[in-house]
Amino acid sequence: MSTLIKNGRIVTPAETFQADLLIEKEKIVSIGDLSSVSADEVIDAAGLYVLPGGVDAHVHLDLPMAGTVSSDDHYTGTKAAAFGGTTTVIDFISQDSDDLVSLVEAMRAKADAKAAIDYSFHMNITHYNEQVDRAIPELVKRGITSLKVFTAYNHRLRLQDGEILQVLRTAKKNGLLTMMHAENGDVIDLLIQEAIRAGHLAPIWHARTRPAWGAEESVARGAALAATADAPLYIVHMNAGGEVDQLEYARSLGIAVMGETCPQYLFFTEKELERPDGAKWICSPPVRTESDQQRLWEGLEDGVIQTIATDHCPFFFDGTKPILYEGKPVQIPGKELGKDDFTKIPNGLPGIGDRMPVMWDAMVSSGRFTVNQFVELTCANPAKIFGMYPRKGCLLPGADADVVLWDPEKRVKYGTAFSQQRTDYNLYEGWELKGFPVRVISRGKTLVENGTWYGNPGEGKFVACEPFHELI
Amino acid sequence: MSTLIKNGRIVTPAETFQADLLIEKEKIVSIGDLSSVSADEVIDAAGLYVLPGGVDAHVHLDLPMAGTVSSDDHYTGTKAAAFGGTTTVIDFISQDSDDLVSLVEAMRAKADAKAAIDYSFHMNITHYNEQVDRAIPELVKRGITSLKVFTAYNHRLRLQDGEILQVLRTAKKNGLLTMMHAENGDVIDLLIQEAIRAGHLAPIWHARTRPAWGAEESVARGAALAATADAPLYIVHMNAGGEVDQLEYARSLGIAVMGETCPQYLFFTEKELERPDGAKWICSPPVRTESDQQRLWEGLEDGVIQTIATDHCPFFFDGTKPILYEGKPVQIPGKELGKDDFTKIPNGLPGIGDRMPVMWDAMVSSGRFTVNQFVELTCANPAKIFGMYPRKGCLLPGADADVVLWDPEKRVKYGTAFSQQRTDYNLYEGWELKGFPVRVISRGKTLVENGTWYGNPGEGKFVACEPFHELI
Amino acid sequence: MSTLIKNGRIVTPAETFQADLLIEKEKIVSIGDLSSVSADEVIDAAGLYVLPGGVDAHVHLDLPMAGTVSSDDHYTGTKAAAFGGTTTVIDFISQDSDDLVSLVEAMRAKADAKAAIDYSFHMNITHYNEQVDRAIPELVKRGITSLKVFTAYNHRLRLQDGEILQVLRTAKKNGLLTMMHAENGDVIDLLIQEAIRAGHLAPIWHARTRPAWGAEESVARGAALAATADAPLYIVHMNAGGEVDQLEYARSLGIAVMGETCPQYLFFTEKELERPDGAKWICSPPVRTESDQQRLWEGLEDGVIQTIATDHCPFFFDGTKPILYEGKPVQIPGKELGKDDFTKIPNGLPGIGDRMPVMWDAMVSSGRFTVNQFVELTCANPAKIFGMYPRKGCLLPGADADVVLWDPEKRVKYGTAFSQQRTDYNLYEGWELKGFPVRVISRGKTLVENGTWYGNPGEGKFVACEPFHELI
Amino acid sequence: MSTLIKNGRIVTPAETFQADLLIEKEKIVSIGDLSSVSADEVIDAAGLYVLPGGVDAHVHLDLPMAGTVSSDDHYTGTKAAAFGGTTTVIDFISQDSDDLVSLVEAMRAKADAKAAIDYSFHMNITHYNEQVDRAIPELVKRGITSLKVFTAYNHRLRLQDGEILQVLRTAKKNGLLTMMHAENGDVIDLLIQEAIRAGHLAPIWHARTRPAWGAEESVARGAALAATADAPLYIVHMNAGGEVDQLEYARSLGIAVMGETCPQYLFFTEKELERPDGAKWICSPPVRTESDQQRLWEGLEDGVIQTIATDHCPFFFDGTKPILYEGKPVQIPGKELGKDDFTKIPNGLPGIGDRMPVMWDAMVSSGRFTVNQFVELTCANPAKIFGMYPRKGCLLPGADADVVLWDPEKRVKYGTAFSQQRTDYNLYEGWELKGFPVRVISRGKTLVENGTWYGNPGEGKFVACEPFHELI
Repeated sequence: MSTLIKNGRIVTPAETFQADLLIEKEKIVSIGDLSSVSADEVIDAAGLYVLPGGVDAHVHLDLPMAGTVSSDDHYTGTKAAAFGGTTTVIDFISQDSDDLVSLVEAMRAKADAKAAIDYSFHMNITHYNEQVDRAIPELVKRGITSLKVFTAYNHRLRLQDGEILQVLRTAKKNGLLTMMHAENGDVIDLLIQEAIRAGHLAPIWHARTRPAWGAEESVARGAALAATADAPLYIVHMNAGGEVDQLEYARSLGIAVMGETCPQYLFFTEKELERPDGAKWICSPPVRTESDQQRLWEGLEDGVIQTIATDHCPFFFDGTKPILYEGKPVQIPGKELGKDDFTKIPNGLPGIGDRMPVMWDAMVSSGRFTVNQFVELTCANPAKIFGMYPRKGCLLPGADADVVLWDPEKRVKYGTAFSQQRTDYNLYEGWELKGFPVRVISRGKTLVENGTWYGNPGEGKFVACEPFHELI
Repeated sequence: MSTLIKNGRIVTPAETFQADLLIEKEKIVSIGDLSSVSADEVIDAAGLYVLPGGVDAHVHLDLPMAGTVSSDDHYTGTKAAAFGGTTTVIDFISQDSDDLVSLVEAMRAKADAKAAIDYSFHMNITHYNEQVDRAIPELVKRGITSLKVFTAYNHRLRLQDGEILQVLRTAKKNGLLTMMHAENGDVIDLLIQEAIRAGHLAPIWHARTRPAWGAEESVARGAALAATADAPLYIVHMNAGGEVDQLEYARSLGIAVMGETCPQYLFFTEKELERPDGAKWICSPPVRTESDQQRLWEGLEDGVIQTIATDHCPFFFDGTKPILYEGKPVQIPGKELGKDDFTKIPNGLPGIGDRMPVMWDAMVSSGRFTVNQFVELTCANPAKIFGMYPRKGCLLPGADADVVLWDPEKRVKYGTAFSQQRTDYNLYEGWELKGFPVRVISRGKTLVENGTWYGNPGEGKFVACEPFHELI
Repeated sequence: MSTLIKNGRIVTPAETFQADLLIEKEKIVSIGDLSSVSADEVIDAAGLYVLPGGVDAHVHLDLPMAGTVSSDDHYTGTKAAAFGGTTTVIDFISQDSDDLVSLVEAMRAKADAKAAIDYSFHMNITHYNEQVDRAIPELVKRGITSLKVFTAYNHRLRLQDGEILQVLRTAKKNGLLTMMHAENGDVIDLLIQEAIRAGHLAPIWHARTRPAWGAEESVARGAALAATADAPLYIVHMNAGGEVDQLEYARSLGIAVMGETCPQYLFFTEKELERPDGAKWICSPPVRTESDQQRLWEGLEDGVIQTIATDHCPFFFDGTKPILYEGKPVQIPGKELGKDDFTKIPNGLPGIGDRMPVMWDAMVSSGRFTVNQFVELTCANPAKIFGMYPRKGCLLPGADADVVLWDPEKRVKYGTAFSQQRTDYNLYEGWELKGFPVRVISRGKTLVENGTWYGNPGEGKFVACEPFHELI
Repeated sequence: MSTLIKNGRIVTPAETFQADLLIEKEKIVSIGDLSSVSADEVIDAAGLYVLPGGVDAHVHLDLPMAGTVSSDDHYTGTKAAAFGGTTTVIDFISQDSDDLVSLVEAMRAKADAKAAIDYSFHMNITHYNEQVDRAIPELVKRGITSLKVFTAYNHRLRLQDGEILQVLRTAKKNGLLTMMHAENGDVIDLLIQEAIRAGHLAPIWHARTRPAWGAEESVARGAALAATADAPLYIVHMNAGGEVDQLEYARSLGIAVMGETCPQYLFFTEKELERPDGAKWICSPPVRTESDQQRLWEGLEDGVIQTIATDHCPFFFDGTKPILYEGKPVQIPGKELGKDDFTKIPNGLPGIGDRMPVMWDAMVSSGRFTVNQFVELTCANPAKIFGMYPRKGCLLPGADADVVLWDPEKRVKYGTAFSQQRTDYNLYEGWELKGFPVRVISRGKTLVENGTWYGNPGEGKFVACEPFHELI
């Protein structure tokens, strides 16, 4: 099976050029003037951009959380991703025991059967001991080359600083990249207890009990630990302006620290949490202020922040009633769990399918960023950082044929009805977006064409990541 | 008893001017052209600067430490201070129980009998609970308005971040200033264990196991906690260049965080620790690199750092043999305790008497700083910050008559023989200093005149500090 | 004649303290507890601040300008200054010939007869040649130790960069400080010609033809020339935020460049120029934007900017009709000259008397600055920088007895009726100010007491300035 | 004629990947797995990098200069370029009259006959009037879309600021990019006159009379003028650290200002000028200090500086004797013209052929930069900025087949004997370089293979540049 995409404008992080692109089986074979080449299928991409499939380095599918589970599983979530132009996602494995290898196997079993697009995993390290340390090299053999640690969630997910230092070193020695959720667990716990005692139970208190200062100092702390370990570090879901300052400062000293942000931090503020349906915007860390937004955008422009992911972890806003999803009723407890107590609201937002269209509109259609920067931040950089390059995130001969045909002129009125995410709300409800994917190809097979779905559970394959080897 | 100091050049943090200064009993009464005034004693200060007595906000006298005690007690230490032009010191009370008031009384009893110059106390908070929290307002009534917390020394002195936040708030509410020893305890403990396991026991490993990054992130963390608590914070013994960066950054955001450095961090580097007698330079945090020195000097020049103190905590280099001190043999175990293991070296350096002459030489005689900046950093600012102003640290009518006559042309060859500190070595051995105090007056009484001592134990009085009320 | 001011709170740039202050003849004699001293007059200053008389380093009195003259002469202007708490002003001598000494004599003759408070002069250098260069040392002998150059006003006041470099060097060699009006003359001329051609003649085009960029690059240029000459430089009337950035940058490199701003740049923006009476706010450089204001305030807070002066150069808004001033009709052509053409509007604003009350209200009553910073920026620093210290700008024994008793609680509704400036409008019309001078003393003589004037023309004396000798 | 380059590692500014590259006639046709494609010539590039041909945006060939001429003409210079891996150069047209179109035609006539590689021109604007202004759009029609102005060389090349502003606007309106030689002409002229008067005639005085401050303020000035004109600006041959600061500052404000540096500023300092053969390093602006070098390198790393060019303008060190060049004796007066007077030394250095090998060694072989950054700075960015993209500076289907096969392991001992530049010295004499081009292809034709030359005069073609349309 071969496919020839003709006349499109091919986009790399550095270049945009008119050329044809030939796919054979699952791979990109060549790019250029291929007018003399024949193929089983010929697609005319005149007027369209030809982009690499998006890589979302931060998703949580089928994640159990206090009394419920994130409402997209590995099929519904990856399907929704594909509709938005994302063809690879990286999920997280919870460290439910110290036998990391068994955890990987269990998680593979769950995902392999369902995933509709390619995927990989990060391993959370939320309990550190010698057994865990010894298991880390085994992960690399199984294609898992990134670990995530937390400075928040005392007594649950948090590691102490000394433990993080040890994880960083073991990771470095074995070619893994350490990722960090940066907030100050102590401060959060204290403020939450006080808020509860004071009867402050509305969603806005979720933000008020997780001060930005805590995120900011944690970035400085993380950079310090990374410097001590001489190991790279990746800060997930950057949300506060001061985090960008600290990241920039650390990078200027030559510390190999990188950062990711998510659309929710670029578009929304704490004010949403004061709405009657404020629970929809509850995620951790919380959305912040306009001035934080502005600094995050600057961080993207200046290259201080390397990637845009989603932290996709959706819940129903009203999980008490079933909704129809693909014609079947689905009902999973959701945000209503915390309607009288913000601490009981499941933490997380939908976004896996929204990322690419929403960011294109804000970055490219607005004229603020080039299409090359878009590709760099949403496709190429996450693939490079997490050891999937040049297999994913790029349009290069030899790469997987994950290709998105993007119509820069297509206008959609976005929202729940449009998105394929399995939940009952969308953060971008009613937004008028300019620019949208019209065809999404994964390893040579068209998954989505003009809104029609051709994918299947289990067609997505696990991507064994390469060891981390250099900083962007 | 009245004293008239004539013809000197009076120095304030902003001005230098020729005038007479009249002391009656223990107070400064007036300044100006007092040619028509008579007094019991008239001192001709022509050619001399008239400075306020120095205020050293960070000393440890008679401090028990692993198998020994700091070798200057409240008499020998305050006497040495006076010889160097310092007339007020602030010591620390160890939190040996949760009954803070009793601790104050015990420490007062010890010091009142011995002190030769005025003094006050900071209270360490190294174990935090509700009883401690309730006792803090009692301290203010007893003239103690500053608390010290540690982010290092796990399981001994360190508070967790949440505890520090609570201390900051209680302090703020009651008019106390919180001080912070900023290092990363986790990292230090881990590195020390590893160093020991690896047989790295020489003094240089003291520095290598206490990375500057840890101090730097702790300043960011402290500032974040201060911002969360809306409380002022004072970073003690700043030693790393990155701490200055973080302090400046936090101050630029309007966070009320201040900083202190000490002469050892301005003059010495880790290289000293590689000398055969490297233990002499062992203090915590350790001396750092030349580039750290340079950034600390800049911090002083730019007003990012507010004070210069000593962290005086002397030990004998060779505590196995008695030395003669005031004609009597003194022998206290010292640095030799750690000759085979850097973790056993008593941590601390002499400096209480060295501070003013050494800093004058480097600041004023060098031409790099004005005499006004010298007075600001060594006298006025510590008095202002710690609630002793306008009683101490200034030459104002109504202030205590703590006055130093300073000869800017006097040259001395400095060292152990010259210093009055009760130990067997001096960091500035053989240094040629230009500028030295020729007369030191404490509350109207001359304690030192041209090297002769007129003071007595118990003549120093406890200074009840005012609540902290504003940031410089 | 002696005067004893009792019980006031004396303010220096570094200290605020309760003390008595004794004046004998024209000088301050002593400060302290002077309860036993008797004096011809005793003033009870309880509840009042005792400040040094203000020093306004930038005024234009009796200055001829295109078809008219600034409407305050050396009597009316200095009287208005005194009412506002200013007791020393520095005016400018226009370089109407190359015989600088004769120019000084002529200007002295004019001012000596009229001035009601002490004053001095800067010399403009707007035409440079060897004769001028040789005359500069003569100025120093006559107490004039500052020169002003312009990078704007091509073919009238502007010197070329090479000439400025030469002025800087000659100034440095002879102990003079060079001041610079920093705008880009070329750009302004071009834009003005274009605006006229396009029929853009309204006042707002005054701002639009003098872009802030021009001021900002000129500060960089001035600093570069100062660095090349190894000479100090003082930027007058800083108005653009980017000027503060450039000043800070240059200072961080150790270049001895200082800056002044004026109240108009701290309180008003270009929007005023769009008002029907926009001509009232026409001055050069123009008032700018809110973000410029904010950066200027930061510059004051951080010590990047050293002084606040006025650039007082008033005109009548309606000069076609006489107004009563001291009971006599005064009529001088004013802003109406340019009612159809912004280029014909006399450039300048009133402010000599407004400065101290308006700045006190915004700085001290607002709580944003300390009273010490107020004194530093409005009194001490200009005196120090221009060689009048410790004679002016300070409350020190031996200084001129220029003393202001300031009531921090006094509230006034400010405006033309209140101000003594000889013009028909006031920029602060109707402003409610908190804090006002209640008594103003010049060399021991009360000039103003509770709104009554006791001064006389000719009582003000020329202040011979000392050579510039160090940077603050 | 078709050529297939197989198995090489293709390099773009963002990606490095293994693929085949097919050339047909003068163009790149396709890239990918072309194992099934046949071609007239097949080159095995295994082990080699496949780079775009270098683009040198700043060369002076056959340039008359005070009594002599730069010693490479359009043949010898472009040949030397090719040997170093550069396949496109941009020369400058001197504005010898106001009839710009005739100047272009004359210069084209001269170059067309000689050039061995493709080339284009910038037009100097050194005399501005309405005729010149009107001629600028004509340049665009002739493929010249960049103008160069000077702030130095008073009365010869310099434009006044107002003239530069007008050039910037006319350029912007018509799609041209303005380039600026940034030094302060006034200061230089003054210092040179003084040096001569003082008998300071040695080469080092070339540097001493062109202070770095002048270059730095000129960058600020240029940025201000660009901002006023809302036009892009490109600073040529950045040489001083402060220029990088000013460029970064201007860019952070959103001003479209870009910068170029040259190898000589990255490798040499003023100290070279004190050597007996110091004249070899005489260029304008001069080489600076080590700290300038460091800041320039940082500027390259951080993306503040966009391009590396050469300012190639060679002279013989000893022009009194002929040397053999291609077997023929060549003798052109050179640096000896100024042996007794630095002002008479022809200003300029060789470098056109040295650039790529020397920069590869320092950037890539050192491990400090990626091969992608090398390509971006030496190939892609200059092509993009000067309207040659995607025709030059890239390996894209449809681009000119300018391809360099680069052996990263090849080691050469570099110097005059190796370089093909027509002069008697080389700045990098004896340097051991790692990495060198082994085959250089221009529009499909191999010009150099393993040191053998296959090119001919006149084979290079003029590249008509596109209008400038966006900032990188």
